Amino acid sequence: MDKKIIGIDLGGTTAKFAILTPEGEIQQKWSIDTNILDDGKHIVPEIIESINHRLNLYNMKAEDFIGIGMGTPGSVDSEAGTVIGAYNLNWTEVQFVKKLIEAGTGIKFAIDNDANVAALGERWKGAGENDPDVVFVTLGTGVGGGIVAGGNLIHGVSGAGGEIGHITVDPEGFECTCGKRGCLETVSSATGVVRLGRFLAEEYAGDSKLKAMLDNGEEVTSKDIFEMAQEDDPFALMVVDRVCFYLGLACGNLGNTLNPSSIVLGGGVSAAGEFLRSRVEKYFKEFTFPQVRESTKIKLAELGNEAGVIGAASLALKFA
Amino acid sequence: MDKKIIGIDLGGTTAKFAILTPEGEIQQKWSIDTNILDDGKHIVPEIIESINHRLNLYNMKAEDFIGIGMGTPGSVDSEAGTVIGAYNLNWTEVQFVKKLIEAGTGIKFAIDNDANVAALGERWKGAGENDPDVVFVTLGTGVGGGIVAGGNLIHGVSGAGGEIGHITVDPEGFECTCGKRGCLETVSSATGVVRLGRFLAEEYAGDSKLKAMLDNGEEVTSKDIFEMAQEDDPFALMVVDRVCFYLGLACGNLGNTLNPSSIVLGGGVSAAGEFLRSRVEKYFKEFTFPQVRESTKIKLAELGNEAGVIGAASLALKFA
Repeated sequence: MDKKIIGIDLGGTTAKFAILTPEGEIQQKWSIDTNILDDGKHIVPEIIESINHRLNLYNMKAEDFIGIGMGTPGSVDSEAGTVIGAYNLNWTEVQFVKKLIEAGTGIKFAIDNDANVAALGERWKGAGENDPDVVFVTLGTGVGGGIVAGGNLIHGVSGAGGEIGHITVDPEGFECTCGKRGCLETVSSATGVVRLGRFLAEEYAGDSKLKAMLDNGEEVTSKDIFEMAQEDDPFALMVVDRVCFYLGLACGNLGNTLNPSSIVLGGGVSAAGEFLRSRVEKYFKEFTFPQVRESTKIKLAELGNEAGVIGAASLALKFA
Repeated sequence: MDKKIIGIDLGGTTAKFAILTPEGEIQQKWSIDTNILDDGKHIVPEIIESINHRLNLYNMKAEDFIGIGMGTPGSVDSEAGTVIGAYNLNWTEVQFVKKLIEAGTGIKFAIDNDANVAALGERWKGAGENDPDVVFVTLGTGVGGGIVAGGNLIHGVSGAGGEIGHITVDPEGFECTCGKRGCLETVSSATGVVRLGRFLAEEYAGDSKLKAMLDNGEEVTSKDIFEMAQEDDPFALMVVDRVCFYLGLACGNLGNTLNPSSIVLGGGVSAAGEFLRSRVEKYFKEFTFPQVRESTKIKLAELGNEAGVIGAASLALKFA
């Protein structure tokens, strides 16, 4: 029997697990709740227990596996296998994840940041077509990303490589939680889209359901805005156009800088699909020079929720 | 005797040669004029002749060398060892440089774009301190660059990686030769600095030597503008501040994206030295989020003209 790999996608509410072939085919999936009580000290032991339980259940042994890979929130030291500052896990102190999981399972372990791992997943088995140069942008509660360039995940000198959400798209834009102004995240995350809507509503005078809802103080989500735009609400279309202008500018400069084969849009906001993609592409073409415009593609993510476990598992291939 | 490497920096007026140790110490240097007549068909034969002549003169043989590396203008296919579209060499058709030089010298040959090669040089023996993540920006007649990320030079899918001069810094900015608007090159190349000066002069009302010169239609260079700024001419200071704002924005987003250990400024405009660097750094800090602000440094290039031959020679180390 060929050896397998295990991928873990650790999040604030659940930890997703998968057993995959070295070619990236998922053979089994399961998940457990993430227990963040007591400074998150139960998380790693429960992951170990769940893996060992699964292996027993299916009569598998540590020797049947090439390795385990995991994506996690927080600041990751991939070399040391440690995590710090993962606030949605209550991990404020350094966690020695690699050491504990290797000791507890007898299987080699690799770890990286969750956005990076999702990028690896989309690059390997999704829209990235396993090319050596692929950029992944997640448009969710925040905006994150991962960059694969020259075949490597780019971490940078302090692990902040791929922080696409903090690209400055408007030097005089909104304040960001990071302390600076005009970050892509402030105008294209789920909350950013709504913020931009509220801001633009002040100046908009035409007839619009969205404008009326915002003026009435009704709760509006980014999903609502995209839906109203798809129903031709003129103000919602204007907000979406501005969101796509900023995304096209950021993606354009990623293209001008790295010339990846594709820039892949994922995360909740990308559920708007082709409606979003085509508009981002329009501005992307405006903001790229010819060689990049013709060779770098704007694509939608293909793996959805599974990008995390697949990309995580790919980390373990280095032990093959 | 340890084997040596040869670096060639091919330009529109001269081809510079150097023989180096594998550690990057230059042992000999020479140069020849670049003969661009007859569609540049003499260039490669004259390079071969010059190398063979040099080897004969010093009683060296092909076996004494690990390889030859070369930086060239134009679009380079590093794999194939070919160049096309190097207009300052009159190379409009594909040139089979690798094939010819290997046949003519009996030494293995590697080639890359001149801006990439200069980046490799500064990264290896200059301001980059041989770190795995270094970005190089050349501010000359145009603005070029090279990106080393995860230890690799980043070419991208069609070789346009590292085209830092075409990062969009102002969506409504000046038209660029590439056809789009607001490229970094339009406001921070030697001609871009002057263009920005002329543009800002229209609105400037105060007392200024630079403003008077521009209004009188006198010829002004980017060097003049930096010199007048260093002599406290208020309008020249305003122009330099705006140039540094755009450079700081572009470098900031390179930092937010790649988190290199350093972004190195080279080329003629960087002769303004610390006066330029400190101002770019000020805006860089404004446009980066804390983790990048604290870990990515803005530096001046250290190798000057020698970056080309040193970086070119480093290409040959892959044959070691």
